[in-house]
Amino acid sequence: MIGKHIGPFLLQGDDPLMIDAAQCATVRTENTLMHAMLLLSSVGFTSVPVLDESSRLAGVISMPAIINGVLDEDNYKWECLEERKVKEAMAKDVPAVRLDAPLEDILHLLVNANYLCVTDRDGIFKGIIARRQILKRVNRLVHEFETVYRVLPLAD
Amino acid sequence: MIGKHIGPFLLQGDDPLMIDAAQCATVRTENTLMHAMLLLSSVGFTSVPVLDESSRLAGVISMPAIINGVLDEDNYKWECLEERKVKEAMAKDVPAVRLDAPLEDILHLLVNANYLCVTDRDGIFKGIIARRQILKRVNRLVHEFETVYRVLPLAD
Repeated sequence: MIGKHIGPFLLQGDDPLMIDAAQCATVRTENTLMHAMLLLSSVGFTSVPVLDESSRLAGVISMPAIINGVLDEDNYKWECLEERKVKEAMAKDVPAVRLDAPLEDILHLLVNANYLCVTDRDGIFKGIIARRQILKRVNRLVHEFETVYRVLPLAD
Repeated sequence: MIGKHIGPFLLQGDDPLMIDAAQCATVRTENTLMHAMLLLSSVGFTSVPVLDESSRLAGVISMPAIINGVLDEDNYKWECLEERKVKEAMAKDVPAVRLDAPLEDILHLLVNANYLCVTDRDGIFKGIIARRQILKRVNRLVHEFETVYRVLPLAD
């Protein structure tokens, strides 16, 4: 269980914990791998969420997945970038949480994921929670917690 | 300043904070972009440190940098992957710290970087400190801090 003082303190921040879908780079299942590669290389991200035609979260597409998606035995078939679709190369097993996910789940999942996709109960993509937002809060926590709270060893 | 109880508590962990150079995937300045791309797509990383012939940290090479490194106006010249070297496309401005860097600096730099390269005073690459190791410690901190310390509001 998360500490009753430290948990709420960590959640506070100047910026929202979730980056809203409107501010997130995403691609569609029907986009080509070339489209996804151009987007990823221009924004400099490793991966972006993939949405279906109803804006539901369908997966995540990463640069390694795109490159591996055009690898045929030992040769890259670059012409396939224009032919193959994002849905053929994306990962479908995506770290995702609901809008009302507890901090405990968010922190646990972010150990192994750069960001979590956030969906509503219908699977509609609402945004992402990235490690960056958590690390900004960790900086605040370690600098300010002991200016607000007195901390005493329990064993004494 | 970092809190005197919370700082040392965050530093504790079952695994070392730094992943030793021997366990890190790296490339050399003289490797081709194709070599770097094969490595990155097989391990699934966004980027890896680049070392010179003396094992000094020279930069970081990322998948977007490789892709942009063979982009000629609007066309990708894939044959350049075999011709161009990592040193031509790598970023030289790398988030890096010394072996004895204070936690304050590490936490601050990790807000904007997936990992920090660690070097000794001669610039020899010693390993990386990744967000993952910090996030494992944050999980431990928020779960265990208040089982070890009593926390009281200072204003009361």
